[in-house]
Amino acid sequence: MLRKFEEVLKKAKSAKKVKLSVAAAQDPYVLKSVYTAYREGIADAVLVGRQNEILHSLEECGIPLGLFEIVPVEGGLAEQSAKAVELVADGKAQVIMKGGVDTAILLKEVLREHRLRTGRTISLIGIVETEHYPKFLLITDPGMIIKPDLDQKKAIIINALEITRALEIEVPKVAVLCAREKVNPKMQETMDAQSLVKMNERGELKGCLVGGPFALDNAVSLEAAKHKGINHSVAGDADIFLVPDIVSGNILYKSLVFLSHAKSAGIVVGAKVPIVLTSRADSEETKLYSIAVAVLMSQRT
Amino acid sequence: MLRKFEEVLKKAKSAKKVKLSVAAAQDPYVLKSVYTAYREGIADAVLVGRQNEILHSLEECGIPLGLFEIVPVEGGLAEQSAKAVELVADGKAQVIMKGGVDTAILLKEVLREHRLRTGRTISLIGIVETEHYPKFLLITDPGMIIKPDLDQKKAIIINALEITRALEIEVPKVAVLCAREKVNPKMQETMDAQSLVKMNERGELKGCLVGGPFALDNAVSLEAAKHKGINHSVAGDADIFLVPDIVSGNILYKSLVFLSHAKSAGIVVGAKVPIVLTSRADSEETKLYSIAVAVLMSQRT
Repeated sequence: MLRKFEEVLKKAKSAKKVKLSVAAAQDPYVLKSVYTAYREGIADAVLVGRQNEILHSLEECGIPLGLFEIVPVEGGLAEQSAKAVELVADGKAQVIMKGGVDTAILLKEVLREHRLRTGRTISLIGIVETEHYPKFLLITDPGMIIKPDLDQKKAIIINALEITRALEIEVPKVAVLCAREKVNPKMQETMDAQSLVKMNERGELKGCLVGGPFALDNAVSLEAAKHKGINHSVAGDADIFLVPDIVSGNILYKSLVFLSHAKSAGIVVGAKVPIVLTSRADSEETKLYSIAVAVLMSQRT
Repeated sequence: MLRKFEEVLKKAKSAKKVKLSVAAAQDPYVLKSVYTAYREGIADAVLVGRQNEILHSLEECGIPLGLFEIVPVEGGLAEQSAKAVELVADGKAQVIMKGGVDTAILLKEVLREHRLRTGRTISLIGIVETEHYPKFLLITDPGMIIKPDLDQKKAIIINALEITRALEIEVPKVAVLCAREKVNPKMQETMDAQSLVKMNERGELKGCLVGGPFALDNAVSLEAAKHKGINHSVAGDADIFLVPDIVSGNILYKSLVFLSHAKSAGIVVGAKVPIVLTSRADSEETKLYSIAVAVLMSQRT
């Protein structure tokens, strides 16, 4: 079981080599992180986009020309995204990485490629390492699905399990987060929590242990859980933190990153391959960790 | 401007003496915190509840009998709460403190006492001190109102201003938190953010600066705000963090307390006097800080 990003990086360095397919690769921020991943021995990349712009950005970033294969696409961002996705569907790369293109445009192209479809909802998982918790916290979904319904919540959990497998977490514990630990018909998320726990008990949601409704303290602190009379193996020991909506997920993820100096990574799961979506505001570290997690996820294929 | 709980404690010690009216005071956890506040010179208390039980709990906690006035009420918890509220309405105490009674029962009695009514919604404010932010974060509402509408959000902000006044924050900056920094009709909270900003600009919501919609990073980090092209005086410098619902507020508050080792206090505002609501799971520190903030809030009356 991996508990720190340092362990993830180490493992990724010794793993089977993986190639990133970078959509709209002319973005210098993304090129820098791809170059770092390359130098660290974590991943190779194929750069998809306007050739002149890519060459210009490579020079601007001081990245040697000729290091990465370039697949020139002179069309718009949709065409560049489609080509990057196609390379992965063709098996020429194993991970999709967002460059200088809006997430919505890239994901549309991913969804159009039937060879990458799983039939599941696509969701984002934030992976957080903080000194205040002895292992990774997987927060989902902090940025894509505004307010998932019960079926989507089930899919979101299944997506997160792809990451816990890569992190070698044997039986991941899923905490369904709410404001309270009691079921309350006025709070739909507490009803959903109860339903997800039942699905899990009945074997309709496998490969994990689901507990809830939990307030956050019950999920991360055994002492707090005991205070509330909660006796469940997920209490105080959760790996996956299922939030009820994008607001609470975004706030949780960002409070850890910005008010607790946590380290983080972000991966989009639900297609047949992981998608690395970094934003300009992400630190260099975060981008590298995200690539490394995607590399570990690609080892099974 | 007070920035640390140590400063709040110091100020409370030298402040005009305030008396807490403790409803259902037989709870040993509450008695301990009242005793600590007394020894620290922060507050006196009158204990309301079943006399035998109070005396028993005092002995159990090693608190000298005769130190605090006891007002015996042999009825149930509602009667005990009503008496504690009445003492405050009569001016015999200045702060209501919840003892061994459910919040709902106590608040019902507060709302029945017309002398304590302000006409505003009653809301909870979590006050957080973390080493990762240079001043207090006031999070509201993390525990009472499930999903406030626009009017309630306005009231919640006005309530929070009672605390910023006590903390001597001259022009409090209010960040209306959402998942994104753009207005999106699919996210009601972003529409509400826009409305609250307009109310503030028009002078319908005074005594503060309101900004939003903000994702949490825009509210606490000027750098993150710049990345998103946000140029607003609240960006990166918020005092009050208005969350869209109880789930996101509860998660934010608890992530700071349980995953960032922050110090915290909690106060219910909206009646004419502050109400201290501590729970058994709260640390001794939190209870003392909550009492100290309530003491500072009572100095103006």
